[in-house]
Amino acid sequence: MTFESDAPARRAYSYLGPAGTFTEAALAQVPEARGHEWRPVHNVAEALADVVEGRSHAAMIAIENSVDGGVSTAQDALATMPGLRIVGEYLVPVRFVLVGKPGTRLEDVSLIAAHPVAYAQCLQWLSEHLPAHAHIPAASNVASAVGLTDGTSDADAAIAPPGILEHHDVELLADGIGDNPNAVTRFVLVSRTVAPPSPTGADKTSIIAELPDDHPGALLEMLEQFATRGINLSLLASRPIGDELGRYRFVIDADGHVLDERMADALLGLRRFSPKVVFLGSYPRADRAIVHYPERYSDDVFVEARDWLRGLISGEPEE
Amino acid sequence: MTFESDAPARRAYSYLGPAGTFTEAALAQVPEARGHEWRPVHNVAEALADVVEGRSHAAMIAIENSVDGGVSTAQDALATMPGLRIVGEYLVPVRFVLVGKPGTRLEDVSLIAAHPVAYAQCLQWLSEHLPAHAHIPAASNVASAVGLTDGTSDADAAIAPPGILEHHDVELLADGIGDNPNAVTRFVLVSRTVAPPSPTGADKTSIIAELPDDHPGALLEMLEQFATRGINLSLLASRPIGDELGRYRFVIDADGHVLDERMADALLGLRRFSPKVVFLGSYPRADRAIVHYPERYSDDVFVEARDWLRGLISGEPEE
Amino acid sequence: MTFESDAPARRAYSYLGPAGTFTEAALAQVPEARGHEWRPVHNVAEALADVVEGRSHAAMIAIENSVDGGVSTAQDALATMPGLRIVGEYLVPVRFVLVGKPGTRLEDVSLIAAHPVAYAQCLQWLSEHLPAHAHIPAASNVASAVGLTDGTSDADAAIAPPGILEHHDVELLADGIGDNPNAVTRFVLVSRTVAPPSPTGADKTSIIAELPDDHPGALLEMLEQFATRGINLSLLASRPIGDELGRYRFVIDADGHVLDERMADALLGLRRFSPKVVFLGSYPRADRAIVHYPERYSDDVFVEARDWLRGLISGEPEE
Amino acid sequence: MTFESDAPARRAYSYLGPAGTFTEAALAQVPEARGHEWRPVHNVAEALADVVEGRSHAAMIAIENSVDGGVSTAQDALATMPGLRIVGEYLVPVRFVLVGKPGTRLEDVSLIAAHPVAYAQCLQWLSEHLPAHAHIPAASNVASAVGLTDGTSDADAAIAPPGILEHHDVELLADGIGDNPNAVTRFVLVSRTVAPPSPTGADKTSIIAELPDDHPGALLEMLEQFATRGINLSLLASRPIGDELGRYRFVIDADGHVLDERMADALLGLRRFSPKVVFLGSYPRADRAIVHYPERYSDDVFVEARDWLRGLISGEPEE
Repeated sequence: MTFESDAPARRAYSYLGPAGTFTEAALAQVPEARGHEWRPVHNVAEALADVVEGRSHAAMIAIENSVDGGVSTAQDALATMPGLRIVGEYLVPVRFVLVGKPGTRLEDVSLIAAHPVAYAQCLQWLSEHLPAHAHIPAASNVASAVGLTDGTSDADAAIAPPGILEHHDVELLADGIGDNPNAVTRFVLVSRTVAPPSPTGADKTSIIAELPDDHPGALLEMLEQFATRGINLSLLASRPIGDELGRYRFVIDADGHVLDERMADALLGLRRFSPKVVFLGSYPRADRAIVHYPERYSDDVFVEARDWLRGLISGEPEE
Repeated sequence: MTFESDAPARRAYSYLGPAGTFTEAALAQVPEARGHEWRPVHNVAEALADVVEGRSHAAMIAIENSVDGGVSTAQDALATMPGLRIVGEYLVPVRFVLVGKPGTRLEDVSLIAAHPVAYAQCLQWLSEHLPAHAHIPAASNVASAVGLTDGTSDADAAIAPPGILEHHDVELLADGIGDNPNAVTRFVLVSRTVAPPSPTGADKTSIIAELPDDHPGALLEMLEQFATRGINLSLLASRPIGDELGRYRFVIDADGHVLDERMADALLGLRRFSPKVVFLGSYPRADRAIVHYPERYSDDVFVEARDWLRGLISGEPEE
Repeated sequence: MTFESDAPARRAYSYLGPAGTFTEAALAQVPEARGHEWRPVHNVAEALADVVEGRSHAAMIAIENSVDGGVSTAQDALATMPGLRIVGEYLVPVRFVLVGKPGTRLEDVSLIAAHPVAYAQCLQWLSEHLPAHAHIPAASNVASAVGLTDGTSDADAAIAPPGILEHHDVELLADGIGDNPNAVTRFVLVSRTVAPPSPTGADKTSIIAELPDDHPGALLEMLEQFATRGINLSLLASRPIGDELGRYRFVIDADGHVLDERMADALLGLRRFSPKVVFLGSYPRADRAIVHYPERYSDDVFVEARDWLRGLISGEPEE
Repeated sequence: MTFESDAPARRAYSYLGPAGTFTEAALAQVPEARGHEWRPVHNVAEALADVVEGRSHAAMIAIENSVDGGVSTAQDALATMPGLRIVGEYLVPVRFVLVGKPGTRLEDVSLIAAHPVAYAQCLQWLSEHLPAHAHIPAASNVASAVGLTDGTSDADAAIAPPGILEHHDVELLADGIGDNPNAVTRFVLVSRTVAPPSPTGADKTSIIAELPDDHPGALLEMLEQFATRGINLSLLASRPIGDELGRYRFVIDADGHVLDERMADALLGLRRFSPKVVFLGSYPRADRAIVHYPERYSDDVFVEARDWLRGLISGEPEE
């Protein structure tokens, strides 16, 4: 499905391939990507490197799954690769089938190929129906099934998206094997550093921050930067910094936009507190849900307080 | 001791009289007041009205005593009279004597005239040496002794500053009767609203603030505005707002100056939080003690964070 | 109005006299005090000493006024005299008249006798109607008026409770001069240390506590002991410890009873945190208002958690 | 290396096989496991099911890696399988080699088999030395290399522990390719629910807790349960509960033992706050580092406070 546009403003979009992955489904939701080149890549680091090094205009990467949690390689890559910014968020419902080589029966399955994130999402079903199975991790939700037919895998069966049946000669062994019928994966579109898009009222801000040191209460103090400005966090995940056990950075999604006064103020507080803050971007939420917050944190209140302070300093009588 | 200057820029200073009070001793510490008129007044409300209505350039008022605590009438007057600002702080050591009419002996004393604040500071000594005494409140630390000799008081003895012996015909019954030999009273010099004096590094900021409503934790949230900016409070006193039991305003002295970044930020937070904040002023501390605070709250850190935020919004790549 | 009962279980009640004070009105609200001796005393220290030394069964003392705030001498006495406990709370509406010697006219008044707390409550009225007045403090709200007629005071007028007109030959100059028509004074009945009365659901707990040291956030940490258990504070007043400026103890009234699980837990936290905590008592609120608090702080929740913990430690499987 | 003891008290230990894995190295650190059956299993769910269903006495599972972070399948299994308890902690240094089929040269490598956790730990080295590589996930750190020689994998090279060279016919292409030379994996030994081992002073307590609801500050409030008792957290990881995006449970390792007063008190607070708390156990830390904490949180302080409270309630005079 990779194709080229002959328009002069040609620009590529990188995504975890091959065609048929959930990531491709996420990219299909981006109107601006239509008619441009889609570059399938092998991993998130490659996708982001395409952006940093100018081979692609943007990359679509999975960042969190409602069942399996944060995609740690993506989070770690964003934490350590400078020059990137999230510009959009996309949700893809996740549904899985179990497929086998033609002629396979469910009761014969012992070795299952599956991308680890997919595997985690079907674990309950597997424990129930195939308790003695073993797992062979696959590179993607498509590669798992491809291996069955091209002979590169010893697996008896593979976990894959339902679309796999249309393109590959595999047999459906079980449908809807995901443990949560409402499972969804969250993707983000990542470009080079640009100014954030205008606030829409339904925005999200992504940050990665380190704690100053390992004393009781440091995390508490970091979270207070948001709580004391009435800002809700929709994601808080810890990732090891990697130098020693017990040292973490925190991946945070906060409701609101950096151009909202309360968020700007929270980011200032965070920057003063944390030895390292990476601002990943402010962008419209995929669900377009308007962010509600107490009136006392509205832009007006911030502006009024600044005016008041200015008056104090100038020596004007207070009203 | 009230006198007039014939200088063209004549200006008066109001203080709780008559001559000989601790308040006059505080005013004597103000170099700018020398050579100007000193107006003795009867109470703090009169002193502040002199300022508001232009009869005096400034007023010296007692605001806190190390033994008896905040001077509530002064605190309440500052909370409710607009157009005032504290411009200086002065400390006066407090020492008391017990004096009687000539011929009085300590063992004969049963009725003691004393200003209530002075009385409170000698209570321990009195309970020990004159357990059966009764107290007649006096209007000032000088009036208490004057009443003994001019016949306006039935008291047998009076509590007064040591200087009383030089100007009045009274007999020393006991010296150093204050319960705390290190007792000190804190005075402030109050002018009409002016721009705060420049920061000296040894400054104090006085504020009076109301809480938004009576829910568990509102005071906590107010105090966090200071604590999360590394600002120590040297005074926190509650005063009833006066409309009903259980509603308070808080009188706060905070270490630092409104032109310090951390203090300005705390005041912004306080203003956004509180339904009513009165800024009473930033001024040099009487003890000239430099305010120490963690490096993370220095002006540089605030400035750097703002630069960082500006960069984020403009879309410049982070370093 | 002091009288004696000839009942065998004779017991006295001390109060700030003379007859006619608001304190006496508070004592009149105590059913158990009827038919017993009422001892008028000169000050709060004397009243409490009567209790400690066994001369009285209990003492009624004013502790807070809705306009003037905490009664500092009472608070300080409770903080430093061991062996006392508050066993009841009483509210007395406060109304003031201005009275003069027979023949005095309002426009002639320049010197006003008034108990300092009464004076503070009429300050607004006085500033408006008698801006040039001076204040002579009086020992009680009755003594102020008595001085007008017995020649012991030079005052032209006195502030007193309305009842004064029935017992003394003074002329009414103005009625209802209190600044707040709803003003009320809160009294507490203090006995020797006894077990607290049973919880009624409408209880209050009084505590005085010192902070461990003067670091930013110590007060915050103390208040969290209450806030994190859903306990509202109806009074928080700071009082200087008295040894140096800037060191305070805090007078706290908290909603609830020491036999409520959440209050017991908060007191444990407070005791562990504070270098000195004085428990003054748990007793029914004067207004009999039931204390509401979130379900998560109910006794059941505490009991359930303890059972759970016991199970963990014993090694029983969790359910 | 699986063997059987003929001792009467025969008991098995499950671990992620095959022989040669880091998990086996962790199990080799357990003195009590010597001479008993070691059961290699295919995944963590199988290992834990062995324990719950009585096939094994205990299971060794990887729980956290210093580079890759929490092992989410292990965390999720512990959160949802009742009847388990962590009884010990073990650290295994992690070192990786890149191996190929005999005759392979580093410059020929394009497809690399690796367990995803191992892969993540070598990503930096790979990006530098083999930027164009693709990754085939393997089921374990041994399976990756085994696939090279038994023909089940198309990979050119595999990431494996150094010991692989002794048992398999593979060629060393690069040594020490882990991005962090100090990388270490933390394992826990899990048994059925038993009483916790006695405190050693160097203990850790593992908990999994859900937040009451998604309001700003809920996580803050949970963390305060630990911070206000001086308890440091060595691990805080969020895991999706799995029902919808944005709902998390938190995996917590806290310094100290449930039989320490401060920890018991924190757990009580946590239980009262959280709709679901799973206590995973208190056990000696692998590093045997004594837990230091402020004196104010010592057992004595808790015991003294309880004695004090008991005295208050009984009505004994305070000292």
